[in-house]
Amino acid sequence: MPGERVAVVGAGLAGCLLATLLGRRGLAVTVYERRADPRVTGAERGRSINLAISARGLDALEHVGLREQSLARALPMHGRMVHPVDGAQSFRPYSADGKRAINSISRGELNHSLLDAAEQTPGVTLRFEHRLTELDPAKGRLVFQTPDGTVDERADIVLASDGSYSAARRAVTFNQSLDHRGFDYSQDYLEHGYRELTIPARDGEFALDPDALHIWPRGSSMMIALPNLDRSFTCTLFWPRSELEALDTPAAIEAYFRVHYPDVVDLMPTLADDFMHNPIGSLVTVRCWPWVHAGENCTVALVGDAAHAIVPFFGQGANCAFEDCIEIDRCLSENDGDWATALAAYQDRRKANCDAIAEMALENFVEMRDKVNSRAFQFKTAAQHALERRLAGRYMSRYELVSFTTIPYAEIPARMRRQNLALGGVATLAALVAAGVTRGRRRRS
Amino acid sequence: MPGERVAVVGAGLAGCLLATLLGRRGLAVTVYERRADPRVTGAERGRSINLAISARGLDALEHVGLREQSLARALPMHGRMVHPVDGAQSFRPYSADGKRAINSISRGELNHSLLDAAEQTPGVTLRFEHRLTELDPAKGRLVFQTPDGTVDERADIVLASDGSYSAARRAVTFNQSLDHRGFDYSQDYLEHGYRELTIPARDGEFALDPDALHIWPRGSSMMIALPNLDRSFTCTLFWPRSELEALDTPAAIEAYFRVHYPDVVDLMPTLADDFMHNPIGSLVTVRCWPWVHAGENCTVALVGDAAHAIVPFFGQGANCAFEDCIEIDRCLSENDGDWATALAAYQDRRKANCDAIAEMALENFVEMRDKVNSRAFQFKTAAQHALERRLAGRYMSRYELVSFTTIPYAEIPARMRRQNLALGGVATLAALVAAGVTRGRRRRS
Repeated sequence: MPGERVAVVGAGLAGCLLATLLGRRGLAVTVYERRADPRVTGAERGRSINLAISARGLDALEHVGLREQSLARALPMHGRMVHPVDGAQSFRPYSADGKRAINSISRGELNHSLLDAAEQTPGVTLRFEHRLTELDPAKGRLVFQTPDGTVDERADIVLASDGSYSAARRAVTFNQSLDHRGFDYSQDYLEHGYRELTIPARDGEFALDPDALHIWPRGSSMMIALPNLDRSFTCTLFWPRSELEALDTPAAIEAYFRVHYPDVVDLMPTLADDFMHNPIGSLVTVRCWPWVHAGENCTVALVGDAAHAIVPFFGQGANCAFEDCIEIDRCLSENDGDWATALAAYQDRRKANCDAIAEMALENFVEMRDKVNSRAFQFKTAAQHALERRLAGRYMSRYELVSFTTIPYAEIPARMRRQNLALGGVATLAALVAAGVTRGRRRRS
Repeated sequence: MPGERVAVVGAGLAGCLLATLLGRRGLAVTVYERRADPRVTGAERGRSINLAISARGLDALEHVGLREQSLARALPMHGRMVHPVDGAQSFRPYSADGKRAINSISRGELNHSLLDAAEQTPGVTLRFEHRLTELDPAKGRLVFQTPDGTVDERADIVLASDGSYSAARRAVTFNQSLDHRGFDYSQDYLEHGYRELTIPARDGEFALDPDALHIWPRGSSMMIALPNLDRSFTCTLFWPRSELEALDTPAAIEAYFRVHYPDVVDLMPTLADDFMHNPIGSLVTVRCWPWVHAGENCTVALVGDAAHAIVPFFGQGANCAFEDCIEIDRCLSENDGDWATALAAYQDRRKANCDAIAEMALENFVEMRDKVNSRAFQFKTAAQHALERRLAGRYMSRYELVSFTTIPYAEIPARMRRQNLALGGVATLAALVAAGVTRGRRRRS
């Protein structure tokens, strides 16, 4: 019921979307953001510059009328462009008909649109430079550090959308008054870190095909590149941290790239400088339960990365977080605005889905850095696409189910098994054999 | 090398033992404890009153000359006394010869002895009522809250022995400057909680056999009881939290106990009061890595429960933490007091062992609450003991390897497999069959 004071912690993509949805319900929502207003100060260095929005994210943006506006500022990528060390690059469409695309979009720009949408929604207040330092779920008390000193706030509902390193989640993780009820929590890091590099526009044009997500699979590591509206590409290296740290002179960096990334080294004039000065990012998977913590005077719910940080290899982090927001909104509708019931339903419905995409994202890393370049994988993909064309709608690859539908993530693994079993004929057998080969190899890697 | 300032956070069992060992090396050690001096104020309600010290713990106590003194104040328990709902209790010795025992000892008393030992060691300083609120591994800065206000301290080496909910570990878990290197961390709660009850002395005598650890296996839950020097028993209920919370009137409590624990209900005059007023404890398993975090001016190492909290069902929490302390001391000896090398060796040697006992402790819960009462389990134990008697020293049960030897925990599972495979003859086959039956059942539970 309106009347509750709702606090949203974190004005990133999910926080802004959620605030907008809740404001439209007539609720009084205050959004607290640690950083200054990025529309004024510009983006923070070190966060990923662009991301891939696909069906789930677009569906969510449609709810707040931002789908078309966002797509207009996005670059569709219809497939992967694979760059082997030797030989020519080759294009692999994401869908059987070659028509479906994921969309490269600037994280900063999308965040600005969502901040604008939230700000323009009656009932929503944005507070920047508010860093959460204390959260007491029993009292419904939030303490923030601001440039003007400490600020003490109250809320009945706290929605924590403050990301992988959520300060709100931290308050719950070790809260003595909640300890006895048990908060299962894990954070697992990959040994790989990531670092961003740049391929600028060349003579005012894209230096690589802008219609693809580019991949340089290199076995234990890889580089990817996504196009930007300014005709540059942002590259991300996913390397074992030790290797990222080992290259520490411009000469060593260039020599390494000339051997392992020969086709792009000359497209990266700022390579050594980017490599030496851009921060190394971490790849963490966070799992926890429950997401909803009811204190005496306040309920805290975790949303998006705060509840389930995942690795970026399926391009689903933001898409998945958006789905969380839509689900909260839907659960409130189904329960006449009753927060307790709505939040309980939200976590119950989302947990298995977010666990499923977390696993698929980890699996996709192996596929992208290694298998995408193998004959077995190419055979499997080609066989799947042949099946899809023949069976129009009755067969879809896992990639398409994740990226081009809004089927719950948790249903995808079972659906893949059913599809493969239910289909008869030579083509299926071939696909199954190919899948078996690939899966067998993956296990050994 | 002496000269380093060593801080030990937490003056529990492990912290005191560690400080004593380090003081004897000629190091300057300051121990900071959140609580007041328990030798002055008495024990805190809600912590377990007694614990079982076995070979590993005794070996460690021997290093600081406290073995005999501790044993003199302990009660040996030579086996389990199993109490079925119907029928007579039955005694199952822990060892084949019936002579080996684990030792029920007061946690408070043992802590007092260890506090005395630390205090009497030159170079060791104890500081009570110092609650750690900040730990900056880069600067080697520790901030404590004390009754006299905030205290700012410096250390080169911080050894965190502040328990399952370690404040020092928390500082490392979410430290932004360490984040990028990755701290894998998990906390997993059982759905069971625990609550302590009392069986007082009856007419000045023990109301149950004091030579046993008593178990009331009840399928999904259980109660255990350990004897105290004052001839009382401390009982611990391990029940699903929902069941512990459901019984909330004296009449309901007594009725329940009369049905499920008929043989002891009349031995517990304060049952309803204890049940309603003692806190519910949590059962958490904490796993993390690395345990050692080297900042610019300070190295933080996690020790005991802070590094690897385990559930209490093998009675190994304190024994295992003591082994950590001995290992740190040994690694310092082997590396001429060089902390960096010593702590690296410490974590490498201990991690697999602590993971192994964490798993075995979880498995033992199923055995104690359920299987201990089954025919298959009794047959298996009897067969194992028969083997041990026949093969004098060449066969030992897992329980004996854990409780009556100092063989590294991590070697025990493999040794069990080797033992079972290497032995021939009917007796072995019988044991294997019995073990198979039990293991099969366990998996389904």
